[in-house]
Amino acid sequence: MATRPAPADTRSSPSIGMLGYGFMGRAHSNAYRSMALNLWPAGIAPELSVIAGRSADVVAEAATRYGFAAYTTDWRDIVNDPTIQVFDNVGPDETHVEPTLAAIAAGKNVICEKPLSWSALEANELAAAAEAAGVKSLTCFNYRFVPAVRLTRDLVRSGELGEIFTASFRYAQEWRTDSSSWLPTRSGALNVIGCHAVDLAHFILGDIADVSGVITAPVTDASRGEPVDTVTSLARFASGAVGTIGATLIAPGRRNHLTFEISGSKGTACWDLENLNNLMVFRRDGSEVNGFAQEIVCESHHEIAKEWWPTGHILGWEHSHINMLAHFLQAVAEGTEVGPDAATFRDGARAADVAEAITSSAGSGHRTPVVYG
Amino acid sequence: MATRPAPADTRSSPSIGMLGYGFMGRAHSNAYRSMALNLWPAGIAPELSVIAGRSADVVAEAATRYGFAAYTTDWRDIVNDPTIQVFDNVGPDETHVEPTLAAIAAGKNVICEKPLSWSALEANELAAAAEAAGVKSLTCFNYRFVPAVRLTRDLVRSGELGEIFTASFRYAQEWRTDSSSWLPTRSGALNVIGCHAVDLAHFILGDIADVSGVITAPVTDASRGEPVDTVTSLARFASGAVGTIGATLIAPGRRNHLTFEISGSKGTACWDLENLNNLMVFRRDGSEVNGFAQEIVCESHHEIAKEWWPTGHILGWEHSHINMLAHFLQAVAEGTEVGPDAATFRDGARAADVAEAITSSAGSGHRTPVVYG
Amino acid sequence: MATRPAPADTRSSPSIGMLGYGFMGRAHSNAYRSMALNLWPAGIAPELSVIAGRSADVVAEAATRYGFAAYTTDWRDIVNDPTIQVFDNVGPDETHVEPTLAAIAAGKNVICEKPLSWSALEANELAAAAEAAGVKSLTCFNYRFVPAVRLTRDLVRSGELGEIFTASFRYAQEWRTDSSSWLPTRSGALNVIGCHAVDLAHFILGDIADVSGVITAPVTDASRGEPVDTVTSLARFASGAVGTIGATLIAPGRRNHLTFEISGSKGTACWDLENLNNLMVFRRDGSEVNGFAQEIVCESHHEIAKEWWPTGHILGWEHSHINMLAHFLQAVAEGTEVGPDAATFRDGARAADVAEAITSSAGSGHRTPVVYG
Amino acid sequence: MATRPAPADTRSSPSIGMLGYGFMGRAHSNAYRSMALNLWPAGIAPELSVIAGRSADVVAEAATRYGFAAYTTDWRDIVNDPTIQVFDNVGPDETHVEPTLAAIAAGKNVICEKPLSWSALEANELAAAAEAAGVKSLTCFNYRFVPAVRLTRDLVRSGELGEIFTASFRYAQEWRTDSSSWLPTRSGALNVIGCHAVDLAHFILGDIADVSGVITAPVTDASRGEPVDTVTSLARFASGAVGTIGATLIAPGRRNHLTFEISGSKGTACWDLENLNNLMVFRRDGSEVNGFAQEIVCESHHEIAKEWWPTGHILGWEHSHINMLAHFLQAVAEGTEVGPDAATFRDGARAADVAEAITSSAGSGHRTPVVYG
Repeated sequence: MATRPAPADTRSSPSIGMLGYGFMGRAHSNAYRSMALNLWPAGIAPELSVIAGRSADVVAEAATRYGFAAYTTDWRDIVNDPTIQVFDNVGPDETHVEPTLAAIAAGKNVICEKPLSWSALEANELAAAAEAAGVKSLTCFNYRFVPAVRLTRDLVRSGELGEIFTASFRYAQEWRTDSSSWLPTRSGALNVIGCHAVDLAHFILGDIADVSGVITAPVTDASRGEPVDTVTSLARFASGAVGTIGATLIAPGRRNHLTFEISGSKGTACWDLENLNNLMVFRRDGSEVNGFAQEIVCESHHEIAKEWWPTGHILGWEHSHINMLAHFLQAVAEGTEVGPDAATFRDGARAADVAEAITSSAGSGHRTPVVYG
Repeated sequence: MATRPAPADTRSSPSIGMLGYGFMGRAHSNAYRSMALNLWPAGIAPELSVIAGRSADVVAEAATRYGFAAYTTDWRDIVNDPTIQVFDNVGPDETHVEPTLAAIAAGKNVICEKPLSWSALEANELAAAAEAAGVKSLTCFNYRFVPAVRLTRDLVRSGELGEIFTASFRYAQEWRTDSSSWLPTRSGALNVIGCHAVDLAHFILGDIADVSGVITAPVTDASRGEPVDTVTSLARFASGAVGTIGATLIAPGRRNHLTFEISGSKGTACWDLENLNNLMVFRRDGSEVNGFAQEIVCESHHEIAKEWWPTGHILGWEHSHINMLAHFLQAVAEGTEVGPDAATFRDGARAADVAEAITSSAGSGHRTPVVYG
Repeated sequence: MATRPAPADTRSSPSIGMLGYGFMGRAHSNAYRSMALNLWPAGIAPELSVIAGRSADVVAEAATRYGFAAYTTDWRDIVNDPTIQVFDNVGPDETHVEPTLAAIAAGKNVICEKPLSWSALEANELAAAAEAAGVKSLTCFNYRFVPAVRLTRDLVRSGELGEIFTASFRYAQEWRTDSSSWLPTRSGALNVIGCHAVDLAHFILGDIADVSGVITAPVTDASRGEPVDTVTSLARFASGAVGTIGATLIAPGRRNHLTFEISGSKGTACWDLENLNNLMVFRRDGSEVNGFAQEIVCESHHEIAKEWWPTGHILGWEHSHINMLAHFLQAVAEGTEVGPDAATFRDGARAADVAEAITSSAGSGHRTPVVYG
Repeated sequence: MATRPAPADTRSSPSIGMLGYGFMGRAHSNAYRSMALNLWPAGIAPELSVIAGRSADVVAEAATRYGFAAYTTDWRDIVNDPTIQVFDNVGPDETHVEPTLAAIAAGKNVICEKPLSWSALEANELAAAAEAAGVKSLTCFNYRFVPAVRLTRDLVRSGELGEIFTASFRYAQEWRTDSSSWLPTRSGALNVIGCHAVDLAHFILGDIADVSGVITAPVTDASRGEPVDTVTSLARFASGAVGTIGATLIAPGRRNHLTFEISGSKGTACWDLENLNNLMVFRRDGSEVNGFAQEIVCESHHEIAKEWWPTGHILGWEHSHINMLAHFLQAVAEGTEVGPDAATFRDGARAADVAEAITSSAGSGHRTPVVYG
């Protein structure tokens, strides 16, 4: 036979408008393009319509690079474009609230990078707005879509670890020990990375009843003259479990060390983002050899991982974004729920509520209830 | 301003014709699409032109999924298409030789999955043909493009590990311990995965002088009635180093365990594909704390990794293909060399030469020189 | 020549009276006998004089087994024996205070297993009594004598890790998840094992300014009908460092998991009692390979380890007792100081002060100052 | 009651004569003294009678330090002493054969450090002599008495790992990369440390049918002008398993890295002397989490470990000697068998037979049968 044109792609193709083009702009664009190929069964082939950014030159190049059909320097062009279904906000923290509220008001489904806002009040405003408008929302707590994290959630939910007694969640990096870091210091460690630790706590263990926090700022960023803080806290969960939640950007050698350790009456699970494919799991089984199992969560029976490569062909950091965004676009296309597998704006607001309680407790020195919503 | 169309992509866009659409077809297609976005500085935006496969239905769907403009059931349509610059052969092993030779004869630059052939004679024929035709060739020994592997090669080349004394290379999987595996058993472990171990030995340490091999087939695949073999060998390198090279598909618990350990007068390096971002490196420095450094080879000063995400955002298996294929297409576009960073068909033939010597030695029980070319 | 009698042992031979004969009785007796052989340069050959215990039969057998010359069922026989120089109290917690105070009153040098007392008041009374009497005292915080722990203290003290920002200390075991455990439940996790974590915090980082604690008792020991607790706390150190201190006996899979992680401006150190010979140390050195060094702290230049076997012949748990007790007996024999390398009764009291503050804070929900002494 | 003398120790007290007083002299003396205390149920309280060595001053001090009643500069004094039941030869390699043969001739039970001899002929002569004389013999392959090694042997023997397909055994150290090492270079790596790897292969997998070896001497010891070698070999076991056996003293960073990896149809086990308490075990069980279990082989149900401390209180290197020598003295006292748990002189000779076959194959380049006995 002669060469024939490929059949048309008849899959759902939600139209995306993106605000921002930095690190996260690339990660999301990569996700949209990868999912159409790699997550074929999901039936989603996103259409990259418009990308917005402040600098015309840079955003124009980003449009070409990331594969967007068009660009603009005014995010309102996206909000006002009736053909766009999804507003994806990957801009700097200070651009999260106003444009996203405008997109919700325009009936867009909305994606926003974490943290929704440094203010719990604003974060809750975003959640309430999305709920009231009946649009789908996604807070980019992408680590929920690491196969080992999903497996942990499932092990806890199914009771395989028993009643949970203790848990620790911590995000440690070394990025601000180097004063030449591009990372801004204005927002504290809790906003920059700690919210991921809080969200994993919510995802795996549920509501937090109260917290006790300590925040110190032991160093000053040389180039900016701003204090660099570090956060530690105790959390009592509504379930009765107790634990710690921490975040620091001044831990030398910790490249990207988001970790947890969760122990229940029947077992323990430990994870580290730097080896994200592995989960250490102990379950008492009474056998002669009964240590921690070092599981490579990359097999055909593991959720998320099963959509990728053959066993042992490990995934990287970016895959969490690919699967998270595909999950969201499926929810948009098929009307299914975003949560609890993914984090909605409500989950983003809940993380901000916890951050606020930790900050308050750090100031008062008192154990402080978490007031959600 | 109003929304404007994205500027045209003016980068080099080599036209690709692909034979095959399975696991590797997806990995390569993913690579072509990812590199245009993620490896922007490489200046390559491949054009996916035609994909060929035996079954019209399946290849048509693959064309749509992978993003090829057209499909065919006859690979000769690709060979005969004068607009196609690169012939990428990801078909089953038995389709490697004839189509690739035809593509070379038609002046295409050629990519072929490993092993080039189960026969060293044929593999050398392919290498000679590509060289005679003056086309660029690539054998898909993708692990050369894992950042930790590249770093090891560089540490050896720069003398940071000193004179190399001992080295072991081994690829162990468990896939054939499960008789329901999709993996065919006709080709031995040496062809299926062992060639990767041999190529890493070449890449890092250079020519092998002679080998001593043992091949046994301790089990029979229940569903196919075929023997399943396991291979172990000693290698003496031209440099004077000595070591072992092994391959087995019947090692329970080894999901994808390609490993090496290399010791020289000044240091030792160890790597494992199951944690591909990590390299364990010991260098004697006389300090009080002088153990193996557990390096996450994912930082801005690490070759290959530096083109990806911020420090500690680890890469997955597929990234080795993305960077390997981008390197090759750059060589095609800019006329630069494929080797030694990537493996040419000559390197593919050299791996086959070593496999033949190991097989011969396993039969004779004698230490056997490796005859290259 | 003919066989000749061995020369007399002219080393210092302090006379030991021991109260108790269980797990710790064996560990100490083993230490006394081992040090004479293995720590020959220390010049100490202890004389095991009298062992006391409640049951005549059992203590008589212990005397023979452990090598004591005599036994008694009344510890006052030891206190009243003027030839005995050292009173070693390894009895159950409830026998720590009265006999030890009596021994101090009789002018004995005193050793007491941890915790000195469940009451900070009593622990301070012991410390004050020993100080007033001018006798040497030792609280058996034996982990100070693990080579990797000593190295950490020295790295911190010499500034090699820079200004310390964050630190966590935690002792986790699984022993009480099994209700058939021999371990009593009356004393909480803080007394049974948590005091070791507190002492390591003191040893390495110094005074703790205040703490915030949470104590829960999520399970009830089936056989005893007693609650089993778990403890987590935040600590602010006088130095400005912040961290967590925890203790739990209900962490499945944690056999003996006393751990710390300490980060300063220049580096990070991590340790785990389950692999007690290893220390993971990161120090930023700007080299191409700059990950955590996995140091086996068992070489000829490492304090404590250097007295033992050739490099890489690892030590076990019991060695911490051997070196600790040898250090104390040297101090007795030579009039040198017990601290800061070993823990005196003052250090035992300080650990009790912290435990009391944690317990108080757990009750009040307020950050609570540690009041030492 | 008043203080009473300890009851007499009525346990079996075999009388020991020792030749040598270096590193191994201390390790054995430590073992004899420790076992009486720690392995009380074994019922052995050795009597340290005479120690022999070349230098009167040094051996006299050793006698005092190690606790021997007497010393001599002539080992014949031990052989001729009718009260001595056990001749323990821990002298340098060149003193192994003649004194041990004399001790056997005198009817002593005999212990000899490894290797029995650098000559397989002499090693077999020793084995034959001990067998003919009907005395108990022990070759000090102490690693058989590491709990994790014993567990591995038992897992293989009970079939829990299935039919064994592949196995590697390797002893790597870095000691001769430092030319100031005290370690002599005359004997090759196979004699100094490789024999331990060979014995573990025998202990766990049984007879070796044939070997293929490579021995190179890539460096010259600067201070002695002697070549320093490194050994690698392939082994085919009588059982059908295949594997590698290696030994090197020039692997930087390898402090004491005796390792094995054994895979059968049902599972895989890996071990490393540098973390001797741990065993990594994979057994396919079909559960959702089915990775390698990191077992701390230090629990009350583990052979050897169960005689020591509570769970998780890890053992050190010296414990292998304590348990090995206690096992031997029990065999002497009770007339039980030394093997297969411990290595007899026959096992020592078998290791020498394998070393000879590897050396022969390294010279000829041919696969070479192992001829035992």
